[in-house]
Amino acid sequence: LRESSLSADAAEKGEYAHYMLKEIHEQPRAIAQTLEERVAGGKLLEAAFGPLATEVFRRCEAVQIVACGTSYHAGAVAKYYIEQIARLPCWVEIASEYRYRSPVVPKNTLFVSISQSGETADTLAALRMAKQSGYLSTLSICNVPESSLVRESELVLLTRAGPEIGVASTKAFTTQLCALGMLVIALAKFHGTDPERERGLVQRLIEIPGLIEKTLHLDETIKKLAERFADKHHALFLGRGQMHPIAMEGALKLKEISYIHAEAYPAGELKHGPLALVDADMPVIAVAPNNDLLEKLKSNLQEVRARGGELYVFADPDSGFQPSEGVTVITMPKHVSHFQASAVYTVPLQLLAYHCAILKGTDVDQPRNLAKSVTVE
Amino acid sequence: LRESSLSADAAEKGEYAHYMLKEIHEQPRAIAQTLEERVAGGKLLEAAFGPLATEVFRRCEAVQIVACGTSYHAGAVAKYYIEQIARLPCWVEIASEYRYRSPVVPKNTLFVSISQSGETADTLAALRMAKQSGYLSTLSICNVPESSLVRESELVLLTRAGPEIGVASTKAFTTQLCALGMLVIALAKFHGTDPERERGLVQRLIEIPGLIEKTLHLDETIKKLAERFADKHHALFLGRGQMHPIAMEGALKLKEISYIHAEAYPAGELKHGPLALVDADMPVIAVAPNNDLLEKLKSNLQEVRARGGELYVFADPDSGFQPSEGVTVITMPKHVSHFQASAVYTVPLQLLAYHCAILKGTDVDQPRNLAKSVTVE
Repeated sequence: LRESSLSADAAEKGEYAHYMLKEIHEQPRAIAQTLEERVAGGKLLEAAFGPLATEVFRRCEAVQIVACGTSYHAGAVAKYYIEQIARLPCWVEIASEYRYRSPVVPKNTLFVSISQSGETADTLAALRMAKQSGYLSTLSICNVPESSLVRESELVLLTRAGPEIGVASTKAFTTQLCALGMLVIALAKFHGTDPERERGLVQRLIEIPGLIEKTLHLDETIKKLAERFADKHHALFLGRGQMHPIAMEGALKLKEISYIHAEAYPAGELKHGPLALVDADMPVIAVAPNNDLLEKLKSNLQEVRARGGELYVFADPDSGFQPSEGVTVITMPKHVSHFQASAVYTVPLQLLAYHCAILKGTDVDQPRNLAKSVTVE
Repeated sequence: LRESSLSADAAEKGEYAHYMLKEIHEQPRAIAQTLEERVAGGKLLEAAFGPLATEVFRRCEAVQIVACGTSYHAGAVAKYYIEQIARLPCWVEIASEYRYRSPVVPKNTLFVSISQSGETADTLAALRMAKQSGYLSTLSICNVPESSLVRESELVLLTRAGPEIGVASTKAFTTQLCALGMLVIALAKFHGTDPERERGLVQRLIEIPGLIEKTLHLDETIKKLAERFADKHHALFLGRGQMHPIAMEGALKLKEISYIHAEAYPAGELKHGPLALVDADMPVIAVAPNNDLLEKLKSNLQEVRARGGELYVFADPDSGFQPSEGVTVITMPKHVSHFQASAVYTVPLQLLAYHCAILKGTDVDQPRNLAKSVTVE
């Protein structure tokens, strides 16, 4: 007796048409699992990173993050939080670039690698190089316990996203963000953050699954939105600060599965070139949580509008964005804080890419030219 | 009697149809002027950076570069050289991002800002913030002696590109690269580089004008090439290492004046997403000097070819690239070294953007939506 792999697959997808859609909806649970037993009673348990973690975090004076693709975007978000909250310098680099430079390693720098599979060839090679380069220690954030990256790193924090089948990463990314959020708190604890602030940050992490649950209710709204998108050939994604890597991730999703040429820019760079591209055929998507950069972002967006670009803004209800001709505002859940916005605002961008792909009839779970894990260089 | 500004303009353009073309052709002279009296007898005269320069370079332990647009690309190139040659850690950031973070400044870090006009609002604001942030010193690389950036920096190295009228920066960029090349040598001198190596590096800089002169002879070849490009809506630019920022600069030129949606990627990231976009409608341009990453780049390019993408490779004569169906090889001058390739390989990408814009009939010197100096935020 031999079961058909097709029906096994279908069963695993359950009520969902695609693995990707299922995995998008699994995010609240995957994140809750990733946080489980690692945060408790308003405290972060830094021992979750391994027996040496306490000593490493205490001595750590800087952080170097290395990753590829979507995992690189998670690292780029973490840079902002590590510098702002833990007050340690942090640098992020694409693994295929990092490993072929001859980087200079400042004293007591922690090397962090991020990979869903833990077998990404360039990331693994970067880790192996790092181990010869005088780093304080190596830490990996990974979804596969038995992977090479995990085996070869001194400290580990596993994301508990469960198997991710869709080639375009979704729940692996948001669980990475939450794992990195725990790293931020761990570092902050040893660098001047008091227990009350720790409690506040832990609380922000614990709220993320609920906020994503609420965001998933936007599914129908975004499905309709996708109809105005799917015939486009270009898109521009804008964000500032820690939302810039989220704009990059949104653009990458659209590229990967809808084959729409989407590109992300930090909004302040618009005037230095990409604004020349903006016209009625180039929709512009902005992620606008209610933070201190909101007013700056608004003025960037006015420029887009003045050039005839259609605007789609994912915004906080308190942001003061008003829908108008050519400006569509998608209202996100209320009270998403700075520390949560990166994970929460990712979700509508995943849904947008998914629904565009469906309308275009592409193979959502297995986009052309791409493999799930890039285990060759 | 009042002269028409039109004929004055035309006179200034001389034999050239546009300022941009004139400015591309002025690069050998602009670079030679930028090097003049600053390198002599195989030595770099670090006093050219200002009376405090010697002491600052001696104490410098790290470099933070901040800039926008094209100037940011120059900074991103310098990062590679500073780490590899001077063996100091170097970080580069977009000014509009840098100024709204709360960066942590490692001890004895030199702050470097780059701007053609010296009035770029975000770069100037970043400099003013840096002066309150405990940097070792501030250095600006700028084309306008009386600008705010120059007045407010402790050390200065002026590019001597002369007035740049075309909105898309050309000679300002390559003179910035050479000014940064001098900074690399200055830093290297105080951090272990011996006089013989200094002489070698100085010699490489001095050869750049001649190599660019040779590269300008490719004008007719590139003009023909542009005919196969001008009807495209997308393009992908690839490079690795210090050629990645050059790919970014090539993509930006095409965006700015031809309104073709060009995007740059470090070649190793292709498999992590953008490869899904590649098909017969997405030409791929690669910059391939004869360096240690060449074999890696070749394997990246085979992937592009296997997906039906048209390839255009700007390559060293010794690189072993053979033209074949779908692969066009543009042979660059011989013996362009690692330290020279960034400036020299920029030139054909400028010409490509120029000729595409001419074919598309856009306003080359004054592209839509853009201003020469971004003096507002």
